[in-house]
Amino acid sequence: MAQAASLSGFPEWLPPESLAEQQVVDTLREVFELHGFGPLGLRAVEPLEWLLAKGETDKEIYVLNRLHAEPDGEDAGLGLRFDLTVPLARYLTENAGRLLFPLRVYQIQKVWRGERPQEGRFREFRQADIDVIGHGQLPAHYDAELPLVIADALQRLPLPPVRLRVNNRKIAEGVYRAVGITDITGTLRAVDKLDKIGREGVHQLLTDQVGCSDAQAHTCLQLADIGADDLSFVDQVGQLGVDDTLVNEGLEELAGVVQAGHDHQPGLVTADLSVARGLDYYTGTVYETQLVGHESIGSVCSGGRYDQLATTDGETYPGVGLSVGITRLLSRLFGQRLLSASRSVPTCVLIAVPTEDDRRRCGRIAAALRARGIACEVAPTAERYGKQIRYADRRGIPYVWFPTDPPERDEVRDIRAGEQIPADCDEWMPPPHDVHPALTDKR
Amino acid sequence: MAQAASLSGFPEWLPPESLAEQQVVDTLREVFELHGFGPLGLRAVEPLEWLLAKGETDKEIYVLNRLHAEPDGEDAGLGLRFDLTVPLARYLTENAGRLLFPLRVYQIQKVWRGERPQEGRFREFRQADIDVIGHGQLPAHYDAELPLVIADALQRLPLPPVRLRVNNRKIAEGVYRAVGITDITGTLRAVDKLDKIGREGVHQLLTDQVGCSDAQAHTCLQLADIGADDLSFVDQVGQLGVDDTLVNEGLEELAGVVQAGHDHQPGLVTADLSVARGLDYYTGTVYETQLVGHESIGSVCSGGRYDQLATTDGETYPGVGLSVGITRLLSRLFGQRLLSASRSVPTCVLIAVPTEDDRRRCGRIAAALRARGIACEVAPTAERYGKQIRYADRRGIPYVWFPTDPPERDEVRDIRAGEQIPADCDEWMPPPHDVHPALTDKR
Repeated sequence: MAQAASLSGFPEWLPPESLAEQQVVDTLREVFELHGFGPLGLRAVEPLEWLLAKGETDKEIYVLNRLHAEPDGEDAGLGLRFDLTVPLARYLTENAGRLLFPLRVYQIQKVWRGERPQEGRFREFRQADIDVIGHGQLPAHYDAELPLVIADALQRLPLPPVRLRVNNRKIAEGVYRAVGITDITGTLRAVDKLDKIGREGVHQLLTDQVGCSDAQAHTCLQLADIGADDLSFVDQVGQLGVDDTLVNEGLEELAGVVQAGHDHQPGLVTADLSVARGLDYYTGTVYETQLVGHESIGSVCSGGRYDQLATTDGETYPGVGLSVGITRLLSRLFGQRLLSASRSVPTCVLIAVPTEDDRRRCGRIAAALRARGIACEVAPTAERYGKQIRYADRRGIPYVWFPTDPPERDEVRDIRAGEQIPADCDEWMPPPHDVHPALTDKR
Repeated sequence: MAQAASLSGFPEWLPPESLAEQQVVDTLREVFELHGFGPLGLRAVEPLEWLLAKGETDKEIYVLNRLHAEPDGEDAGLGLRFDLTVPLARYLTENAGRLLFPLRVYQIQKVWRGERPQEGRFREFRQADIDVIGHGQLPAHYDAELPLVIADALQRLPLPPVRLRVNNRKIAEGVYRAVGITDITGTLRAVDKLDKIGREGVHQLLTDQVGCSDAQAHTCLQLADIGADDLSFVDQVGQLGVDDTLVNEGLEELAGVVQAGHDHQPGLVTADLSVARGLDYYTGTVYETQLVGHESIGSVCSGGRYDQLATTDGETYPGVGLSVGITRLLSRLFGQRLLSASRSVPTCVLIAVPTEDDRRRCGRIAAALRARGIACEVAPTAERYGKQIRYADRRGIPYVWFPTDPPERDEVRDIRAGEQIPADCDEWMPPPHDVHPALTDKR
């Protein structure tokens, strides 16, 4: 069992999965930094009014109170963040004068939502976000760059292939308006349910609850049907017969993203005009990401362009970002045993302890190995060697070091192969692939 | 200004300090892993009753409620962790059957306390904990090992020298009982205030509030006066004339820790019998850590032995751990400009953009450099080169790459030295110290 959760919706991993998660996070970070994104670790807590103004998820917000607080104490009216974008927008408006734009940042943090726990839905989960934010304006080439950063990061993990589905809200909004729909947000939210409730379900939702006519609902579904790995989606939208400035702007932006994706790696980025995204704050490009063959997990990385989220003193800070749902992704991969680490601890070498009187000497051997970057620990007790080897074996520690007297006769054993050789703690190195635990590809 | 906090007690850093914090965390992690500690990332949320049973900080706990929750919903009665040890104890009792003991883990996470914000006291802050936990018993040599792991970690950072002050609660408890004091916890808490309110303040607290006689209070203060870099503290305690099994056990354990510290590095670990620690759950060794010359920060790393924190079904899981107060430490170091990163972004090379038509080619140069581990980004706009160089300069990016036509004539400039040389993006490497940002020693 990978999961150790005792509280529904608040997942915890056992140590081997924690180690694997850490390696996933390290890989994402490494790629984000290679692309020039710097780390940002914002506070978990936001003023409630800021959370409520920026999200439609008000029922899911966790409010904080001190156990014995005065009702109007200075920390009243606080809640936990439900995503990493809304706090970033707050941080931007507070610190704009001290930041350099365009700002390239990543955040890898927990967020909290009081959703009903179910498969793939958690109340506390980790996200990894990248964002680029401009001051006043932000060139559209960033909309094309960010999905390629995410693809670079996910493709360095032993995961099934990824496919980024991209849309632009300007297209839907322009088409909806052109056919006379007034409740744009309601229509987007209904179309966002396409994967869950199907075409007929969405049609019914649009006509019964959003107030669309049959013809309007039909157009929405026709638009959502459009998709392509190349620029042919532009003509398909044209065939709907809507000539509108906003639609054309959206088509141009989306074409830029799809073309850049195609140039980078054909099939990686695809235009899919059914992608809506639930959050209100997106104003243009929106992204979802699927693992090919594992579409039922849902989107493992989503995001979009937000031109209006951060504004202050008449200044705007338009941004574009993507968020990897680490917990959702790993929950599925661990559950299906598709991902694990090559050992359950960082330790590469266990120093066996001949007698308790030798513990200091064992410590010096360990220090010599560590000085050359080899992770090691000294055995807990000087029990018989068979038990000490078993300690290493149960944890996947590949090597056991046997101190001898005189030290020139020290030996090290690869306990997987059973091979034991003489070794000097100032010189011996394990093969490079054994130095650190690695993620194991089990596809 | 390093600090960007808008909410008192909830510190946030600007990007350069975030980058420096990340490097501090990475250094700690690297050392913890070299010593065989594996990562553990537990949930932020605990049942209130667990938090209340394990800490005396009930007034400081943040309680969670969903904004529109039913009063008895399944996520009622939850609070945010106030440390990383109490959640670890809960995790142990829940998962004992699936864990391997002794368990060596580290946690680097946020915790929350509703304290009154002041210098060095925060409501949300990051800690880095290491713990070793046994099943049934845990050898005393771990009490001696853990402070050396912490010393190894802190000494790899460009910090002032560290000094670990160690005590053992069994000594104080035995001496207090021997002279007839009954309120052991109250006495420990009063002595814990020695640094803050001085000898007379503690004496008064002991006689007025804890119920000690003058003679008893005098003995407490005599005991607290004892300290040594070597084993001479054993005789000093002996001169108090208390012969008690618990005292002798504590002296033996403390002697083991001090001797191991002395062997490792004289002056690093010192016996200081005034060290009490506020938390209830410590049962033996207790640790505090000072930065020499910066004692006013308070302890930057504290912890102790907890034999009774995790028990279930008649089984006990004794542990010993230490916790680095990352936020407190960095808040002081950033504030006094004692620590910073060598640049404010991970980027090593900015690819200049001659014209917007060249952006794709610039992206290919960036990809070639990244493939060899060099972090880079492409300039935001094709403005004149002077402005593009200024973009790099303001962020501390050391190199700017100038694409030319034909590509064989590409050049790269070290903008610090102003030196520009021909370069091939498949071959050029910056000097090793420029590849990644580094922590700068400003002591």
